[in-house]
Amino acid sequence: MYMNYAYECGLPPEIPLTQYLLHRLRQLGIATIFGVPGGYNMPFLREICNVPQMKWAGNTNELNAAYAADGYSRIKHLACLVTTFGVGELSAINGVAGSFAEHVGLLHFVGMPPLAAQMRKLLLHHTLGNGDYKVFHRLGSDVTQYTAVLADTETCSKEVDKCISIAFTKQRPVYLGVPTNISDTLVSSALLNVPLDLSAHEGKTEVQEDFANAVVSAMYKCKNPAIIVDACVSRHDVVAEVRQLVELTQFPVFCTPMGKGAINEHHPRFGGTFVGSISPPQVREVVDFSDFVLVVGALLSDFNSSSFHFAYKAKNTALLFSGYAKLKNAMYPDLELKTALRALLRKLDPSKLKYRPEHVPEVIKPKIKLMNNVPLRQEWVWNQISNWFREGDIVITETGTSAFGVNQSRFPNNTRCITQALWGSVGYSVGACLGASFAAREEGNHSRVILFVGDGALQLTVQEISTMIRWRLKPIIFLMNNSGYTIDRLLHRKSNAGYHDIQAWDNLKILPTFGAKDYDTRVVKTVGDFLGLINDPGFALNNKIKMVEVVLPPMDAPPALMDKWLIADNNDETGSEDINGWQSSKRIKLDSQPSVDSLASIDSLDI
Amino acid sequence: MYMNYAYECGLPPEIPLTQYLLHRLRQLGIATIFGVPGGYNMPFLREICNVPQMKWAGNTNELNAAYAADGYSRIKHLACLVTTFGVGELSAINGVAGSFAEHVGLLHFVGMPPLAAQMRKLLLHHTLGNGDYKVFHRLGSDVTQYTAVLADTETCSKEVDKCISIAFTKQRPVYLGVPTNISDTLVSSALLNVPLDLSAHEGKTEVQEDFANAVVSAMYKCKNPAIIVDACVSRHDVVAEVRQLVELTQFPVFCTPMGKGAINEHHPRFGGTFVGSISPPQVREVVDFSDFVLVVGALLSDFNSSSFHFAYKAKNTALLFSGYAKLKNAMYPDLELKTALRALLRKLDPSKLKYRPEHVPEVIKPKIKLMNNVPLRQEWVWNQISNWFREGDIVITETGTSAFGVNQSRFPNNTRCITQALWGSVGYSVGACLGASFAAREEGNHSRVILFVGDGALQLTVQEISTMIRWRLKPIIFLMNNSGYTIDRLLHRKSNAGYHDIQAWDNLKILPTFGAKDYDTRVVKTVGDFLGLINDPGFALNNKIKMVEVVLPPMDAPPALMDKWLIADNNDETGSEDINGWQSSKRIKLDSQPSVDSLASIDSLDI
Repeated sequence: MYMNYAYECGLPPEIPLTQYLLHRLRQLGIATIFGVPGGYNMPFLREICNVPQMKWAGNTNELNAAYAADGYSRIKHLACLVTTFGVGELSAINGVAGSFAEHVGLLHFVGMPPLAAQMRKLLLHHTLGNGDYKVFHRLGSDVTQYTAVLADTETCSKEVDKCISIAFTKQRPVYLGVPTNISDTLVSSALLNVPLDLSAHEGKTEVQEDFANAVVSAMYKCKNPAIIVDACVSRHDVVAEVRQLVELTQFPVFCTPMGKGAINEHHPRFGGTFVGSISPPQVREVVDFSDFVLVVGALLSDFNSSSFHFAYKAKNTALLFSGYAKLKNAMYPDLELKTALRALLRKLDPSKLKYRPEHVPEVIKPKIKLMNNVPLRQEWVWNQISNWFREGDIVITETGTSAFGVNQSRFPNNTRCITQALWGSVGYSVGACLGASFAAREEGNHSRVILFVGDGALQLTVQEISTMIRWRLKPIIFLMNNSGYTIDRLLHRKSNAGYHDIQAWDNLKILPTFGAKDYDTRVVKTVGDFLGLINDPGFALNNKIKMVEVVLPPMDAPPALMDKWLIADNNDETGSEDINGWQSSKRIKLDSQPSVDSLASIDSLDI
Repeated sequence: MYMNYAYECGLPPEIPLTQYLLHRLRQLGIATIFGVPGGYNMPFLREICNVPQMKWAGNTNELNAAYAADGYSRIKHLACLVTTFGVGELSAINGVAGSFAEHVGLLHFVGMPPLAAQMRKLLLHHTLGNGDYKVFHRLGSDVTQYTAVLADTETCSKEVDKCISIAFTKQRPVYLGVPTNISDTLVSSALLNVPLDLSAHEGKTEVQEDFANAVVSAMYKCKNPAIIVDACVSRHDVVAEVRQLVELTQFPVFCTPMGKGAINEHHPRFGGTFVGSISPPQVREVVDFSDFVLVVGALLSDFNSSSFHFAYKAKNTALLFSGYAKLKNAMYPDLELKTALRALLRKLDPSKLKYRPEHVPEVIKPKIKLMNNVPLRQEWVWNQISNWFREGDIVITETGTSAFGVNQSRFPNNTRCITQALWGSVGYSVGACLGASFAAREEGNHSRVILFVGDGALQLTVQEISTMIRWRLKPIIFLMNNSGYTIDRLLHRKSNAGYHDIQAWDNLKILPTFGAKDYDTRVVKTVGDFLGLINDPGFALNNKIKMVEVVLPPMDAPPALMDKWLIADNNDETGSEDINGWQSSKRIKLDSQPSVDSLASIDSLDI
């Protein structure tokens, strides 16, 4: 593909820098650019139509655009977000920080005022009025892996290459500021004939060999092992290696909420979702009492994980992060996930394993038969929906009750899951759904994109549904309407506080208000309604945009959350409804009140 | 009011810190708190209902909440924004930066994890996963006047007082981070009996005397003077002083776009709006050729203003900023706007003025008679709307064509105007409209709140209309529908670029979709439609929320913008439609191409 790239694209000998950048993205399979137009990014936008297959999503606002880029990247391993200086980049920064926290590859292109204006400290619009042109770049650098502001026309194409490579290999956001006078710098199109250097930071061979040897010998000895698949397995694309490891060892394998979708949940060795202290008892039984746990693609930094409650009771724990590893108390820095895993697979001799495959926990929930006129509850819905998912689906869940509920469902093989469990920015899922829908269409295999979002969360980012309509994307949206911020009602023990209420919308009017002509809207309130829905073969088709309003009681939630509520109630010394242990400087006893601690951080990564 | 405050409110001897803070806000007339609930701000939200008259707006997202707080503060001189740690505060940061750039008093309360968790670097949700709990505070400090993170229960009430005082007196945002374990610290309610110290930074008496003497003697000598009223006249509340200065001197007075509303536009000495190089010719004639210009409440920093194009040709220019002043080339630091103005008024002896009042430019535009079936155009609309405004109105215009159009209208006395001319964050006006509507209702004099927002800008922040409906606020919304980002089409000379298009919405369905029951929607397309609207006495009442869709041609704009387009066309060396001079590093000649430079920064403060 590369050798004759410029010729095959019919490029002139020199092309503008922004066009060069777009071709680089195209070479990595990127075909959609996210963002909002602004004065300083016009030179970039102008070039989009000059690059084959490339299109401009034209989001409704910058934060939504950042969420969309994040969702797109979780499918395609890279995305590009374009904002303008100051107002644009700051509107997006929360989304970019989320990509940083959750290891998502993102190139954030920021169109900046021309260097001459910056140096003269002209009082342009979108500045703070104090002549400081560096402030936004400084802010961006705290939530990105690498930053560059282009100033030199000689080296700018190299810097662009470096930015894209880092975003892709590190799976983190990179900030690229481009003053408008640099955007159109002419660069040689022949540079595109040489592929980008995407060889990941390889790690030190010796370290990886050492680590692999140590892990393999721990594996040989153990009798009750477990493998746990975490977020970076998908992000750093070691899905195949992990699956091979399971085949070779036959160890029971579990996923974390952020690792969901990376492992085939119908594999005979799959044991369920491990969500720390709120895991199903049969999962805790295996994981907590195993004598060796290997966490692959761990996203957690290691500090304090033992004193907090992503604690594996097993003393033999190997944690494989994206850039380093830990075995018991030994650190292995300078180690790369894929290379280390491959070294491990090379060294592993299955005949030396002491472990003899034992029964893994049963995942399938008992089917509860309910009368058709019974009102819906989340526990039942999340069990039922498992039967409706199909291979290839992309399932997106909002931070809130949906992110808990989905852990209760069982995915068909090759189902991908998008959730923002660590950063947990409410409203993220709607933007991510747009991005994933673009990515799914570009894959060309008609994957369904299925969104579960609460009525509270939807209000933050609702307008991005307009962009889905504009591009005739066809997600299936389940609007879980429980009349407000139910997760907060539960976690903060205030069922009736006015600040958990929201304005009631006529939700099924959203699609036509945003200009949809060909769409499907439904409302389901009872068991009978829901069964009718999932048994309707027409509904299962992703042939148009669909929205189903699932009406649920305000204080209903998936079992994991409801159980936690009950546990907390028993530990509640004050006897009042409000047991958030963080509220009083006098009452706080973090160490002695583990359940309160757990409750307050219930939507953090570790559960 | 203060001496018996605690007793009159029936407070116990000790109250939680967050309640203390809310009482302090109440003492300054604040009755609405803006923000979005989140785990770490629950202790604050719980206290709102314990403070008389205080209410929680419950915005739909944090950026909208920041815009709303900004709009509220522009009417009430202070507002409080509440967000949660990480995700919440970063979502709001663009709005806070806007308040910083434009001198708007704002207390940003950030609910933080308990100190114990921070010190142990627990991996809580809403963190970047790297244990850095200081990163968001660091980001916030770049766009605020002052920051504090409370840690000491002994001094926390004093720190709260300090934060509020600075936000109020400096008219800038202040960041106040409060860990959940500090929120409920009990403090003495008797502290509330002592008023907050709100004496503004007084400035040095000697400096102010010196400055006043110098300005007064310049005033005595001049023959063609002008006073220009800029943004900080409203923000730092020196409206009365400025009006007195005009009465005493009888100098012609103009306002900048950001100063609009601070001066009575029906005063015989009012000469119109000064918008730099795109001012009406009769305004430029006075200002550019005057021999003394006094700019009061200047928001511009002074550096480079002369080399850029907020240039007054008069060599005798006095600029009075909020915290310092400049006369010709002399700087006067340590000077406070109100005190300095009062010193000036004390010293001024009108009998010594050489100036004899001359004719000031005529503001009223000739009435153009058009047939009823003529399609609407902005020039005609903005002239007509002047007749419909009435005393007490609060007029809010979006960055875009509306912000230019409003300068063409003539306000009745005591009309207040909200626009974000320097920061220019698109979508701001919808949030600001919510905040101003709360403020207007709290004033109790039934001021109408009138919003002009484009169809493109509306899409960024549309859901905040839901909050207006929820609280039965009754703004009158003019949706200027010109099918996309017209201002960008004009400024960047690409009338047909796809990236200026937006998804067409069924705009008049927005109110019912967001749950409005009692509302009024209309669409106007022709001169006849519009005249019918503004001559309908029922429409003029703010008795329910109203939305008028004003259908305009995509390439139509107020005259100031259209003229600029034509000027630029004449100077266009390339002959193409695209003349943005910033696009090529080779073509940029900032100094030699003033008209191109002006065009590219046309929506900056200085025009």
